[in-house]
Amino acid sequence: MPPRRIIIDTDPGVDDALTFLLALASPEIQLEALTTVQGNVTLEKATRNALSILEMANASHIPVAQGCSHPLLKSPHNSSEAVHGSSGLGQANLPEPKLKVIETHAVDYLIERFLAEPDEISLFAIGPLTNVALAIRKEPRIVTAIRELVIMGGAIRSGGNISPLAEFNIHEDPHAAHVVFQSGIPITLIPLDATYKCLLTPADIERLNKVDSHIARFIRDAMADYMAFYQQYEGFAGCALHDPLTLATIIAPELLKLEEHYVSVDISGGVSTGKTFADFMKVWKKPANMRVALDVRGREFVELFIARMESLIQKLQ
Amino acid sequence: MPPRRIIIDTDPGVDDALTFLLALASPEIQLEALTTVQGNVTLEKATRNALSILEMANASHIPVAQGCSHPLLKSPHNSSEAVHGSSGLGQANLPEPKLKVIETHAVDYLIERFLAEPDEISLFAIGPLTNVALAIRKEPRIVTAIRELVIMGGAIRSGGNISPLAEFNIHEDPHAAHVVFQSGIPITLIPLDATYKCLLTPADIERLNKVDSHIARFIRDAMADYMAFYQQYEGFAGCALHDPLTLATIIAPELLKLEEHYVSVDISGGVSTGKTFADFMKVWKKPANMRVALDVRGREFVELFIARMESLIQKLQ
Amino acid sequence: MPPRRIIIDTDPGVDDALTFLLALASPEIQLEALTTVQGNVTLEKATRNALSILEMANASHIPVAQGCSHPLLKSPHNSSEAVHGSSGLGQANLPEPKLKVIETHAVDYLIERFLAEPDEISLFAIGPLTNVALAIRKEPRIVTAIRELVIMGGAIRSGGNISPLAEFNIHEDPHAAHVVFQSGIPITLIPLDATYKCLLTPADIERLNKVDSHIARFIRDAMADYMAFYQQYEGFAGCALHDPLTLATIIAPELLKLEEHYVSVDISGGVSTGKTFADFMKVWKKPANMRVALDVRGREFVELFIARMESLIQKLQ
Amino acid sequence: MPPRRIIIDTDPGVDDALTFLLALASPEIQLEALTTVQGNVTLEKATRNALSILEMANASHIPVAQGCSHPLLKSPHNSSEAVHGSSGLGQANLPEPKLKVIETHAVDYLIERFLAEPDEISLFAIGPLTNVALAIRKEPRIVTAIRELVIMGGAIRSGGNISPLAEFNIHEDPHAAHVVFQSGIPITLIPLDATYKCLLTPADIERLNKVDSHIARFIRDAMADYMAFYQQYEGFAGCALHDPLTLATIIAPELLKLEEHYVSVDISGGVSTGKTFADFMKVWKKPANMRVALDVRGREFVELFIARMESLIQKLQ
Repeated sequence: MPPRRIIIDTDPGVDDALTFLLALASPEIQLEALTTVQGNVTLEKATRNALSILEMANASHIPVAQGCSHPLLKSPHNSSEAVHGSSGLGQANLPEPKLKVIETHAVDYLIERFLAEPDEISLFAIGPLTNVALAIRKEPRIVTAIRELVIMGGAIRSGGNISPLAEFNIHEDPHAAHVVFQSGIPITLIPLDATYKCLLTPADIERLNKVDSHIARFIRDAMADYMAFYQQYEGFAGCALHDPLTLATIIAPELLKLEEHYVSVDISGGVSTGKTFADFMKVWKKPANMRVALDVRGREFVELFIARMESLIQKLQ
Repeated sequence: MPPRRIIIDTDPGVDDALTFLLALASPEIQLEALTTVQGNVTLEKATRNALSILEMANASHIPVAQGCSHPLLKSPHNSSEAVHGSSGLGQANLPEPKLKVIETHAVDYLIERFLAEPDEISLFAIGPLTNVALAIRKEPRIVTAIRELVIMGGAIRSGGNISPLAEFNIHEDPHAAHVVFQSGIPITLIPLDATYKCLLTPADIERLNKVDSHIARFIRDAMADYMAFYQQYEGFAGCALHDPLTLATIIAPELLKLEEHYVSVDISGGVSTGKTFADFMKVWKKPANMRVALDVRGREFVELFIARMESLIQKLQ
Repeated sequence: MPPRRIIIDTDPGVDDALTFLLALASPEIQLEALTTVQGNVTLEKATRNALSILEMANASHIPVAQGCSHPLLKSPHNSSEAVHGSSGLGQANLPEPKLKVIETHAVDYLIERFLAEPDEISLFAIGPLTNVALAIRKEPRIVTAIRELVIMGGAIRSGGNISPLAEFNIHEDPHAAHVVFQSGIPITLIPLDATYKCLLTPADIERLNKVDSHIARFIRDAMADYMAFYQQYEGFAGCALHDPLTLATIIAPELLKLEEHYVSVDISGGVSTGKTFADFMKVWKKPANMRVALDVRGREFVELFIARMESLIQKLQ
Repeated sequence: MPPRRIIIDTDPGVDDALTFLLALASPEIQLEALTTVQGNVTLEKATRNALSILEMANASHIPVAQGCSHPLLKSPHNSSEAVHGSSGLGQANLPEPKLKVIETHAVDYLIERFLAEPDEISLFAIGPLTNVALAIRKEPRIVTAIRELVIMGGAIRSGGNISPLAEFNIHEDPHAAHVVFQSGIPITLIPLDATYKCLLTPADIERLNKVDSHIARFIRDAMADYMAFYQQYEGFAGCALHDPLTLATIIAPELLKLEEHYVSVDISGGVSTGKTFADFMKVWKKPANMRVALDVRGREFVELFIARMESLIQKLQ
């Protein structure tokens, strides 16, 4: 089977960076481009980080297109620094990238790529959904051209991580999520319900750093603040592989418990704004609009992640 | 230890009826009054049913005060007939009660009783919270006079039963719930998260009806539609003892997993209206305003319920 | 024609006080009671002020019933001190009243009085509508027993005075207004559209104080801060006779331009919360639920007000 | 003074068509392009109508770029057929246009044109603001490149024409209006408060048709349904020149009463959604974000409009 061709829409962000590395380390995946969006950090930082990480991983051939600096309606939050550090990559100090973004705007890049090869490429959206929503509104035909859209976002039965009910990516641009969820694109949602079960521990980081490697050091440094944050606020040593878990839909789908549901997002402006919820009891009698990962064999995914990082480290030595 | 003195605010309703019977069957409890409210059925039916059940159970000495026919703001739903039957008591045909309601309005009755003996009596609210909210607004001093308020309502991690996110009692009068949750009364919430684990099965009903008893027959007839509804919509044979589980706080607290949380209700008017949610991660940094039953050893409670019903049947033979 | 019998529900407040005086000065009106509610000031101050003003005007025979200290859902605003002074009566220093409130709660007093003599008495609500809404929910039959309900509140075409769109009385308890507007009671609404055209000027105050009179002095002292506030924020010397204008429906209806409309209040929780609006173009195709005063011959009403004050001053000399 | 260079963003629509004609008839104006958006009619019809009208008016040199077929979040309304006829141009039957749209999407066309000549060109938005909002989110630098944005939309003191509070263009995409109003672009708003004072009467139409002219016939046929609608629903013979009035900012600014205010739009999802309101009393203490036409010498504008049409008719004979 040929590798699955994917584009990642991203706001790196520590676990975004790990997602690129996991994609590059996985023979089942062909990473064709990154498109950036504000979210964990400002757009400028997100783009810089995307370029730097590709350079670090010897993947400068992969184009990066820059997208939206502002959510559809809300003001940008841009204050995830406690989690992702002021650069967005924790304590990792990557050199200024030589690589530049391409000229095309991310929204147009997505439209062009997907319309050029309908149903061939999958989109992995691991930041706020602003670029995707704008692409849908600007060119509705993109809806039938995206093979699959895998989203890291939402909290179905789980509580939120930015408000009692809402997960960060969705909460940062709930209106974009509303547009995307209603669009008709085939969606797989990877919410906190699954991602919080994939915890990378300090012991895992140590294991990766047994060999001397700039990738292993990057992972350690990037995760340092993130781990400290989790220790303080979530009360456990380790941090969740939120974004990388999206790639499990390709490299280890058997680990995910996927169910089809009608999932919606609250855009009322009230206390539940940004809440994603499934109509489990079919009270609304609407057909399912996505597959949702409600559970995962988390430790198995973490082990797979570590194995892939080890092979990448070896390859890049 | 003397029995705990309680008043039940109720909209009977099949499982409301079972709650009265469980209270009457339990030596740990002294049921002092019922106050009625619209909810599962109209106020008139709720009051009639309350009186009929007390009569059936030889408990005509217990006063019944009639309360509000309309939620604070919303229009009444009053269409739970699929669950509770057109009378509110399934296929049970109780004779017209001879007992009459007392003259005092439920709101005033609650105010008078609690102010007369501060901190002595607990209130069990197993319908919409309209009466309780009105009492708080009319006489704020009731807040410190209620010993404890145990509420059947809400869905924290669980999905809703009337909308994807909301449970019926809270959804029927979310504004009243908002008033009550913010009031400062010591609250214990028994949400769907716990109640859906307490399933009375057809075999349980059969077991109760081994002896010939009007109480056992009532339970069987009252539950018939309810069971059929559960079979059809929830896909299991059996039905949840939502309201009776509130009494576990007195007769079997060890079965409940209670946690203290800040719990709020969505009154935005959007799709999440009526959603009750806990700020598990303390994102809002507010002190807990209630204890919530997030889990229960359900089958043990059902067994206890059956045993109590058997003793009541024997007593009333 | 016998005088019209009225009860005033009130949160005095400077212009509330003027309303009592105008009612006492008007032979067309028989003031039967006051019921108090929080609004311009806390409930305690509102009640004290009501009693003090009646005493000052030799009207201690008029009963005062105390009502709600808290809006239905919102937290009390109670910060109208810039307008009404810390006592609620500007710089007027009335002695502590000897008169006491009656024992009955305002909500019950309203229910009892209106049910005792259906269609005989009119209700003038010149504060937040909390008491009226609670009475409706507690005893729905009051709806057909109130002869007419005249409300000072709302801003139809006019801008608001507490938010860009909302008027204070409605904004303070929009949910109560929603209940009242939907209730079916025959309503006449006196919004800012009319009241801002009835401006009492410093010259008017001076004219009243030409004779030495405790009533004239009270009006001058009570209005002092109010005038200063208007001068500063609204840019004109003078202040609006908001509440007294309600009585024009009895003593000078020919001055009001009344239209029948379907009027609604926004309770969405968004920026327009508390906005009252008329469906002028009948987009919603609903029958009118009230008469609204969209205009008034303002100066004529002010002249009438002054004349009545002069006669009251004379009577009480 | 050289003519003012403008681009019109439009959803033709009868009065949109009249706006193009007025622009073409006015020496003070140089119409450089049209960009289309769904609104009064579907995007396809809007684009077809734009092309047809330019052809009819010998203005085929003016480029037309096609924009968004769907509001930012809401579902399209597209049911203005009662007002604008099924084609969007009443009973006027224009031949299928030979002219084609340019390839560039309206959003990109706006971005390119305004960034190419910053502060040189003004934008007249006479449909829903979807294209403008998307351009702002895709390329934030457009904000400082637009010389002025004149919007037909909103109802400040006036009632709405699609809901009791909301005007059609804003109500059709309130979220886009929110983005635009908050953007920092210099805005002049022409709301219903002004446009409803510019009524073209049947006598005016007759006057234009005294000479035999395809333009005069087009105006008559296009207006026929529109007039009938106004007669039926608004109760007067004649129809408002909503969109053409925007051009008064160039050709007859002295007729407009413009005030600077902070104007906002309700996007709460409640009954006031789409309401535009000015903070007249500066309750929010925010600086003005636009000029608003609160009044106009309407008949004078209508006379000017007729004179310009007469000169265009002559020119095109």
